[in-house]
Amino acid sequence: MFYTDGRLQYPVRVETPDPVFARALQQAIGGVEGEIRVCLQYMFQAFGARGPAKYRDMLLNTATEELGHIEMLATAVALNLEGAPLSMQEDAAADAVAGSVMNGMDFRHLLSTGLAALPADANGVPFDTSHVYASGNLAADMYANVAAESSGRVLAVRLHKMTQDPGMKDMLAFLIARDTMHQQQWLAAIEDMGGAANLPIPDSFPQEQEKTEFSYAYFGHRRDGAIPEGRWTNGPSMDGKGEFGARISEPLGEEPMLAPARPDGGGQSIQSARSGRTGVLGTIEGAIERNL
Amino acid sequence: MFYTDGRLQYPVRVETPDPVFARALQQAIGGVEGEIRVCLQYMFQAFGARGPAKYRDMLLNTATEELGHIEMLATAVALNLEGAPLSMQEDAAADAVAGSVMNGMDFRHLLSTGLAALPADANGVPFDTSHVYASGNLAADMYANVAAESSGRVLAVRLHKMTQDPGMKDMLAFLIARDTMHQQQWLAAIEDMGGAANLPIPDSFPQEQEKTEFSYAYFGHRRDGAIPEGRWTNGPSMDGKGEFGARISEPLGEEPMLAPARPDGGGQSIQSARSGRTGVLGTIEGAIERNL
Amino acid sequence: MFYTDGRLQYPVRVETPDPVFARALQQAIGGVEGEIRVCLQYMFQAFGARGPAKYRDMLLNTATEELGHIEMLATAVALNLEGAPLSMQEDAAADAVAGSVMNGMDFRHLLSTGLAALPADANGVPFDTSHVYASGNLAADMYANVAAESSGRVLAVRLHKMTQDPGMKDMLAFLIARDTMHQQQWLAAIEDMGGAANLPIPDSFPQEQEKTEFSYAYFGHRRDGAIPEGRWTNGPSMDGKGEFGARISEPLGEEPMLAPARPDGGGQSIQSARSGRTGVLGTIEGAIERNL
Amino acid sequence: MFYTDGRLQYPVRVETPDPVFARALQQAIGGVEGEIRVCLQYMFQAFGARGPAKYRDMLLNTATEELGHIEMLATAVALNLEGAPLSMQEDAAADAVAGSVMNGMDFRHLLSTGLAALPADANGVPFDTSHVYASGNLAADMYANVAAESSGRVLAVRLHKMTQDPGMKDMLAFLIARDTMHQQQWLAAIEDMGGAANLPIPDSFPQEQEKTEFSYAYFGHRRDGAIPEGRWTNGPSMDGKGEFGARISEPLGEEPMLAPARPDGGGQSIQSARSGRTGVLGTIEGAIERNL
Amino acid sequence: MFYTDGRLQYPVRVETPDPVFARALQQAIGGVEGEIRVCLQYMFQAFGARGPAKYRDMLLNTATEELGHIEMLATAVALNLEGAPLSMQEDAAADAVAGSVMNGMDFRHLLSTGLAALPADANGVPFDTSHVYASGNLAADMYANVAAESSGRVLAVRLHKMTQDPGMKDMLAFLIARDTMHQQQWLAAIEDMGGAANLPIPDSFPQEQEKTEFSYAYFGHRRDGAIPEGRWTNGPSMDGKGEFGARISEPLGEEPMLAPARPDGGGQSIQSARSGRTGVLGTIEGAIERNL
Amino acid sequence: MFYTDGRLQYPVRVETPDPVFARALQQAIGGVEGEIRVCLQYMFQAFGARGPAKYRDMLLNTATEELGHIEMLATAVALNLEGAPLSMQEDAAADAVAGSVMNGMDFRHLLSTGLAALPADANGVPFDTSHVYASGNLAADMYANVAAESSGRVLAVRLHKMTQDPGMKDMLAFLIARDTMHQQQWLAAIEDMGGAANLPIPDSFPQEQEKTEFSYAYFGHRRDGAIPEGRWTNGPSMDGKGEFGARISEPLGEEPMLAPARPDGGGQSIQSARSGRTGVLGTIEGAIERNL
Repeated sequence: MFYTDGRLQYPVRVETPDPVFARALQQAIGGVEGEIRVCLQYMFQAFGARGPAKYRDMLLNTATEELGHIEMLATAVALNLEGAPLSMQEDAAADAVAGSVMNGMDFRHLLSTGLAALPADANGVPFDTSHVYASGNLAADMYANVAAESSGRVLAVRLHKMTQDPGMKDMLAFLIARDTMHQQQWLAAIEDMGGAANLPIPDSFPQEQEKTEFSYAYFGHRRDGAIPEGRWTNGPSMDGKGEFGARISEPLGEEPMLAPARPDGGGQSIQSARSGRTGVLGTIEGAIERNL
Repeated sequence: MFYTDGRLQYPVRVETPDPVFARALQQAIGGVEGEIRVCLQYMFQAFGARGPAKYRDMLLNTATEELGHIEMLATAVALNLEGAPLSMQEDAAADAVAGSVMNGMDFRHLLSTGLAALPADANGVPFDTSHVYASGNLAADMYANVAAESSGRVLAVRLHKMTQDPGMKDMLAFLIARDTMHQQQWLAAIEDMGGAANLPIPDSFPQEQEKTEFSYAYFGHRRDGAIPEGRWTNGPSMDGKGEFGARISEPLGEEPMLAPARPDGGGQSIQSARSGRTGVLGTIEGAIERNL
Repeated sequence: MFYTDGRLQYPVRVETPDPVFARALQQAIGGVEGEIRVCLQYMFQAFGARGPAKYRDMLLNTATEELGHIEMLATAVALNLEGAPLSMQEDAAADAVAGSVMNGMDFRHLLSTGLAALPADANGVPFDTSHVYASGNLAADMYANVAAESSGRVLAVRLHKMTQDPGMKDMLAFLIARDTMHQQQWLAAIEDMGGAANLPIPDSFPQEQEKTEFSYAYFGHRRDGAIPEGRWTNGPSMDGKGEFGARISEPLGEEPMLAPARPDGGGQSIQSARSGRTGVLGTIEGAIERNL
Repeated sequence: MFYTDGRLQYPVRVETPDPVFARALQQAIGGVEGEIRVCLQYMFQAFGARGPAKYRDMLLNTATEELGHIEMLATAVALNLEGAPLSMQEDAAADAVAGSVMNGMDFRHLLSTGLAALPADANGVPFDTSHVYASGNLAADMYANVAAESSGRVLAVRLHKMTQDPGMKDMLAFLIARDTMHQQQWLAAIEDMGGAANLPIPDSFPQEQEKTEFSYAYFGHRRDGAIPEGRWTNGPSMDGKGEFGARISEPLGEEPMLAPARPDGGGQSIQSARSGRTGVLGTIEGAIERNL
Repeated sequence: MFYTDGRLQYPVRVETPDPVFARALQQAIGGVEGEIRVCLQYMFQAFGARGPAKYRDMLLNTATEELGHIEMLATAVALNLEGAPLSMQEDAAADAVAGSVMNGMDFRHLLSTGLAALPADANGVPFDTSHVYASGNLAADMYANVAAESSGRVLAVRLHKMTQDPGMKDMLAFLIARDTMHQQQWLAAIEDMGGAANLPIPDSFPQEQEKTEFSYAYFGHRRDGAIPEGRWTNGPSMDGKGEFGARISEPLGEEPMLAPARPDGGGQSIQSARSGRTGVLGTIEGAIERNL
Repeated sequence: MFYTDGRLQYPVRVETPDPVFARALQQAIGGVEGEIRVCLQYMFQAFGARGPAKYRDMLLNTATEELGHIEMLATAVALNLEGAPLSMQEDAAADAVAGSVMNGMDFRHLLSTGLAALPADANGVPFDTSHVYASGNLAADMYANVAAESSGRVLAVRLHKMTQDPGMKDMLAFLIARDTMHQQQWLAAIEDMGGAANLPIPDSFPQEQEKTEFSYAYFGHRRDGAIPEGRWTNGPSMDGKGEFGARISEPLGEEPMLAPARPDGGGQSIQSARSGRTGVLGTIEGAIERNL
């Protein structure tokens, strides 16, 4: 259960409203790198957490913080929209360059919200909750969280670069710091749960049941057999359970052959014949000779 | 540019076709944990990779492998659908329990594909490419990849548990091994790029420009001030640049106050009045006295 | 900014876990009639509210309550999934009817969440935030909220009917009561803002600028000229500003005629000819004579 | 079954084509406030209507009208696109300001439709039919319709403000009038069905089965106990069945405790331990002392 | 502008309601092969048609027919849902097999519509209007329409196979006939516009501006150089403008090399180095020797 | 299984990077007319192909080619973004017209990808795999492929028109040529399978089971009985099995009448009454007399 005090976690000031920057800020609200995503992701991870309660509690706590970040950013969008032109005429009058402010705006800020934030990204694409990664495996979820906070901080840094407004830069500097902490927090949680001992994820599957000859081998799929070398082709594996190697990938299976279509299954009649794998392929030489 | 040889990377056998398991397998094709996602994710990370070419090459290579996993799973779905009932009548006849096989099937396997795989998840929800995380920051992307392979291996392990078919178990044991490797690979890539020195991500933002007093502090949002302790509230931070701490979160900002609506902006007339923050809130005691 | 105390707003008990009912409950979490929707809808209405602060405060407050309803329902889903079969074999063993429990389950409860709730509806379709109606017009939003709580209560009543579990019935009886209140609350807010004086919405548009001869007329589009009568064809209009009437709808505009396609615009050559409206239509008699 | 006469319900004229305004108009076609939505919504409400036939007939009739509104707006979009630049070069030549018209356009008007309307919103996001609210409860649907026509009229008013074109203003003045009527119509239908007697919706659920002590109480979730007062905390409820009151929301349930994860369920090993609710939470003081 | 007479184009009878078949029928309403799609597709093609008016008129006419097919199918769904169980208990009682009917149903038929149709497919996935293909090129659109009616007839045939209900079979036999006609109609329209002379589409692009050496060559991408022969590798091309041939596809471009990342662009520091294409790739032999 | 050689199928050069054109190019990557779509469409058609293996092989081969087109276009987007402004300030400095470049850009190119391609369309809408048409009927799929390549070539031609960059024009001229071939290829495959003998699709349904009196009749739905004549109303049908004709469409079915709502089904009480079809409709004259 939840409470509010109506105040913002950190001050949100806009010195020079910029309706185009309002569009950019939307990415941090409803983008896949944004705050609705992390808020709901941590919520659902908490709601479904099985095992030691401290992880549930920690997740719920931070989910609650993120909710306040949505609030801050939505406020920032609304403040950047103060004074935006409502008509083509105003737009032309307000600026030496006819149409330029409106051209850069999200029209839905004018048409759908009355100068307020949308739960959508910088292109007006709504957020959808398939991006809420909550797998029921805490280690998998922690890595998903590190990833979310990494792309989140990358986004915040790019927004910080984009604007010159001191108020906006200040707010973003706060959010960047929180993203720093949250990256650290999820990495710390991985350590708290055992660090490398969590690997491979899930750690509860008896590894002898997997095809272990393929478990630490980098597969090369280049036609020329070259292979991009790096830490992933050399030395002990990151879980300490194997040695990295590399091999050229060769097909171990055959060409698939499905049964013919049932005559009453809605296919074409021709599909009810046997697939006739034999003799299908000509040689390119033949085809070239005949046609080119 | 790409090539194929028409064969499967690993054999796909189904001893006892199970049209209901075909539905479950869809999650590994078109689910957010599935192979279309990782294939396109690594592709787009490769296509947009800036910096040392070896990461691009490695990504492109593994993307190419993943394409073959889609092929394997699509084949597995089609093979599990061989012999599925096409009518309510056949369904009733084929089974002691009227309707039971069809009830558990994805009807689109009957209606939309003619007994073949869909690029959709176990609920028939199509994959959408907003799940392709390719941020332009290689370290962020590597963590996204670890996360993807973690939830991918969790899924494969659950499918392995779900079926008793030896052919399917064998195929999944191969895919589980590849997921093991790919988790290792992306972690190795992080080490290859510098390990903890990559943190916080992005490492190119001058950290003194963030609000550093909040960079390593876990914020408690519980009303009672209790805090879930763990590695994230104690000891050196994971990037070695700070010490974890904890604090009760208190609002540093005020209640937001937006300008009144413009009279010609499509709001209600009442919204053009000043917001009148003062005196708005009554006391709960007054309300209770009057009403309850 | 927000807080939690980790407890549930109302007790959630499940006496006999039912994994199929877990699927049904998803509709109340991530369906368009569900709690994620109302929570985010009231949030964004609050964040963007312009005008008297009391509406913002009221909205924010109730948004915060709804967040706790998501929590309750997510817990209910997880509890209904306790003991669900993880394999086809267990499913067959646990029940006299082979396959029946799994057939009725959302497979993603098994495969994607490890027996916990998804932010999705009863068909596994994720929620998307385009359903968050927050128009910047408070009266429009209040009606959207009445609508949301109406379909929400309809859903809760149907879930109440569907289950026999006393714990679930108790929880739903609470949620139904809250939906009752919230319907009342938004209707009360409309009265608080002036009742019928809010109409038509928005009330800030000078009504003489609309084509008032069409403002209170029900248009009949039946080919036979019959008209479905009711309160909407008779008596004073609901805003007290007109009298309802009815008329047969007749086209006041012509057939549209677009310019031909530019030859370099990617159309077919034939499209660059004039549209040739004249003489296009034959008579059905001619066509019939020639062909039937 | 349906018929057309190929003519427009109301004339659509554009004096000065404006390809940027064409983008704005898209919101009224394929936006959530738009005409595809209301058309399909009334259609599906009619198709599924149970009970007195007059509501079905009325709905079907108005759905048929709305179809003609889609036609009008699609025509308006196409006319606004006449003469739009097809290349960067033309764009620069046509305007003193290089690139300005194209920058503000929906590129899909150039690339995907050949200067015609899309069934999408002002950001090019396609309409999806999850927005078609048809609950099987006529009163719930009527409120959904009032809401749809309210946001629809708000949108039309904003478009009317945005443009200076007399033809467009004329067309919008007609559509605004129809939205006025349709708001009235659905409110009249509610009265026709019994007015306040419809409440709470659904009216068919025995209200004594809900937790009535919560049915008319506004819940305060502010941490400081303050409460936003209004009509919703005072006086008789809108359905005449209760008295509004207010109370501070306190949790009536406990902290949720889920069973540990099954060892073979794809979680981490650590999750199979008991959740250990006791002793999890430290005090913030301890954490602060140790770390800050 | 449009009209209705409230009657169905063809009788819809259900002798034995089958709530599971209701789910299957949804695919024909809201599936990508369904009637909402073709209705809106032909509508938007008509609304945006440039060139000879007869094509616009024909499209609008058939769009209007398709609207009536949605109506028929929505009625069929509702009739199949008559008498469906509303609770787990009824479900168990109504059938020897506990849970079996509900398991196979779309729960939203129970929860969201009150036993009526949804504008969604057989998995409850809503229709989205990105499937409305209306390119502004009439020939391209005609082929899209042939494709839509082909998959539509395939679907209708499969539904016809699935059910034994005489009423449903009768209705589907009508819809199948209409799909036959509509396939013919769009092919006839292609002939009407000039047949093969329409090719390649668009026919308005000067073909000498394309790289004509690749215009009639089938490219082989098999690693072994084999090529699947057929009419597409032999004989005159279908547009009569070339001869089919085949060639092994070889890369004509180099490996892409993007500029390094800007240091202030949110990437990792390592990405600001030159990409260093030279010397990146090791030989597989070296990697294998070292590691395996 | 698949391979790559890291090189591009055709050279991709950009002489003058244009970040706005990068947005336009996105349509060819992630739009419904784009390369991700055809690549996955041919893949899934191949994976599920039943019947003669040569069609499977041909499809797989061309799918593999299309993958390389995604690569080319993604590279083109990245190259067009080289040197794009990262801040409002740079944007203003780089151009005489403040804000103009950024206004026309996809902000996600700046914020989400670090100047690289997105798997999304020109409006940033992600691709979703419901557009992958693979019906299990090879003839239906071939027409879907012709349609895809037709709208694909239309798009490429429009992009070719839009840009003046010689490198981009060259790349597009190659892609246009490949679209030419692929249109030819799918038409050739139809001929290869029997040409008109494939019609109607599916050809495996006994045509005497459809309502043949409606199989070759164009239905007129105009209120005035006029009919748009053309090849589709005259002469032999395209499959050679009938004669085209035309008829005025008249309803053959009655007005639908659903059962009343169950009192415990979540509807309104009023809906449990009989539908009372008789006497519902008044005459328009009566309504007009009373009200207007």
